[in-house]
Amino acid sequence: MTDTATLAASPLELASRLIACESVTPATGAVFGCLESMLDPLGFDVTRFVCGEAPDGPVENLHAIRRPLGDAGRHFAFAGHLDVVPPGKGWASDPFEPVVRGDLLHGRGAVDMKGSIASFVAAVAEIPRETGTISLIITGDEEGPAVYGTRALIDLMQTQDTVPDLCLVGEPTSVSRLGDMVKIGRRGSVNMWIRVAGQQGHVAYPHLADNPIPKLVAILAEIEQMVLDNGTDWFQPSNIEITDLAVGNPAHNVIPAGAEARISIRFNDLHSGSSLIELISGIAGAMGGSVEAKISGEAFLTPPGELSSMIADAIRAETGLETELSTTGGTSDARFLSRICPVVEFGLCNATMHKLDEAVAIADLDTLARIYRRVVLGALVGTS
Amino acid sequence: MTDTATLAASPLELASRLIACESVTPATGAVFGCLESMLDPLGFDVTRFVCGEAPDGPVENLHAIRRPLGDAGRHFAFAGHLDVVPPGKGWASDPFEPVVRGDLLHGRGAVDMKGSIASFVAAVAEIPRETGTISLIITGDEEGPAVYGTRALIDLMQTQDTVPDLCLVGEPTSVSRLGDMVKIGRRGSVNMWIRVAGQQGHVAYPHLADNPIPKLVAILAEIEQMVLDNGTDWFQPSNIEITDLAVGNPAHNVIPAGAEARISIRFNDLHSGSSLIELISGIAGAMGGSVEAKISGEAFLTPPGELSSMIADAIRAETGLETELSTTGGTSDARFLSRICPVVEFGLCNATMHKLDEAVAIADLDTLARIYRRVVLGALVGTS
Repeated sequence: MTDTATLAASPLELASRLIACESVTPATGAVFGCLESMLDPLGFDVTRFVCGEAPDGPVENLHAIRRPLGDAGRHFAFAGHLDVVPPGKGWASDPFEPVVRGDLLHGRGAVDMKGSIASFVAAVAEIPRETGTISLIITGDEEGPAVYGTRALIDLMQTQDTVPDLCLVGEPTSVSRLGDMVKIGRRGSVNMWIRVAGQQGHVAYPHLADNPIPKLVAILAEIEQMVLDNGTDWFQPSNIEITDLAVGNPAHNVIPAGAEARISIRFNDLHSGSSLIELISGIAGAMGGSVEAKISGEAFLTPPGELSSMIADAIRAETGLETELSTTGGTSDARFLSRICPVVEFGLCNATMHKLDEAVAIADLDTLARIYRRVVLGALVGTS
Repeated sequence: MTDTATLAASPLELASRLIACESVTPATGAVFGCLESMLDPLGFDVTRFVCGEAPDGPVENLHAIRRPLGDAGRHFAFAGHLDVVPPGKGWASDPFEPVVRGDLLHGRGAVDMKGSIASFVAAVAEIPRETGTISLIITGDEEGPAVYGTRALIDLMQTQDTVPDLCLVGEPTSVSRLGDMVKIGRRGSVNMWIRVAGQQGHVAYPHLADNPIPKLVAILAEIEQMVLDNGTDWFQPSNIEITDLAVGNPAHNVIPAGAEARISIRFNDLHSGSSLIELISGIAGAMGGSVEAKISGEAFLTPPGELSSMIADAIRAETGLETELSTTGGTSDARFLSRICPVVEFGLCNATMHKLDEAVAIADLDTLARIYRRVVLGALVGTS
């Protein structure tokens, strides 16, 4: 035990303190003060800043870094977010009053992801300062637009020259048991609006009108038949879903002037948002349609290597599980961090995230702290 | 000239009096009193009655009949409506204040169809009572739901044993010149709502959801490829239009729980509403969809014969035109009357019907009165 270790509280106590600070996205103020008060005694230099304007801001962010007194050594970062999704109605107890019932700690953010932040802080408390450089990259807007959150933190790190060598994102990636899944990448996501314009008219005189709906149906039928790819070693096949159809024609006897569909594509690293926009625009354009698109995130992959191996080893040592390296599921802020260094995501079980009565097993908080400690030590000094 | 003829006013005067009675659908009261005051002096027995309840009623109707003093002879009926569509804003003059500008009489209902009622009254005024039985079948709800209008008049006629031998409906069937088109039938009309139910879910996990939209697209693509028929001697091919698509899913990342399309079919007498419902239900059902349908009207045809020939002869005699026997366009109350006797529709030029500044050529009112007179005489005594 070092001096800093004696300052540490249990992950349960730390998680409870964070949950008690209500922080529906975008998080501001108290919850950041709470985390800062945990990091200060551990020797971290904490930078808090607010960024952006409405509608996607302002957003509060926190960057904390602890360097050895001598050689900086390797630099390991933990990234995460203090904002939580709205609790909704129907909780068994106040979502912002942490409550232990049986083996579980209940509260909004218990698994996504105040619990994993607490476990990381508890882990760092047991790691001597001289081991190497450790930083925390914490935003208040991951569940929202995420425009002024992690991206602003990356700008700060590039300006301050504090870009880490390796980064672990504490998202709740475990499925059934803590440690059963780690994410080494995520699919990209793009939404497109396909519009076909026609000529309004009376259904009794179709030759005087130009119905846009058959053209839209033909475009969508062609899109449905398309196979984007068959997947890769690390990604499942890219997938297109048609998520909305809209004409908005209340009149039974009127051929409408326009028709619209929305599609959502989750794609692997064989594609980019712009290559898919070009593809769909070609199909739509051939039948008189046009496409408007919004890329939510590009696909990214940290190919299996040093970081994922260290995490897999740590999980095996603490739980006995052989973890699965996965790229499934939605996107996360790891898509931004993957541009600056290798990134792997690993955290608590996600069964209750975003749901009523979100809860974490208290034993998992302790195990996760031990896994995180092994990963940090492995990254900084080559032993776990 | 007979005694009754001396009572007659010009079609222009009669039409002006009817237009001056505002009668946006459903028409009631004054406009019926106005017509009754024209028919009384001509020797008609007038029955006015109100029928139906909200939401499709009450509706006012008028039945007028004039029998010879001796043998009733043949019975010729004229059918029409006193209600008009709303005028809308932007008229050059008050739509319910009949105004002559140049050669035209302006006012809502000038062509659809107070003008043709006026022409028919003027025609009858010149036909001696002993010629045969003449009736007028006039509703106040043709432009609206038409539930308690002509159908109630048919009930009345069947109860009173006053069903005519032949019926002319005074709808504005002429296109470019008075007399260029007569309708001997109309296509049927049915609207259907095709619904596909699915299982809602997140677009990132499509295997946990069941997207209804691809199924709906497949159903619609199959419907689009279908050829219902190639037309008949008297009907153009039946036609399907997809008139609406609706999912109503505002969330980009959600696979919706249901999808819906609306189609409108205009069909000839090779089909019935129910045969088409069965056809579409089969296609939709094979792909997990269901169909709700509303038949607006069945197709009907009065095959070319005595009545249409008499009308064509009268048109030729008064205008020199060879009329076209057509089944195009929307539906009319002739669909109800076709169940009780041969029905042909013929009236004024329809270019301005349902539009701002609806107007009729004064000369057309006079010519139409002469054509109607020839038709009635031809029907009742075999001479025109």
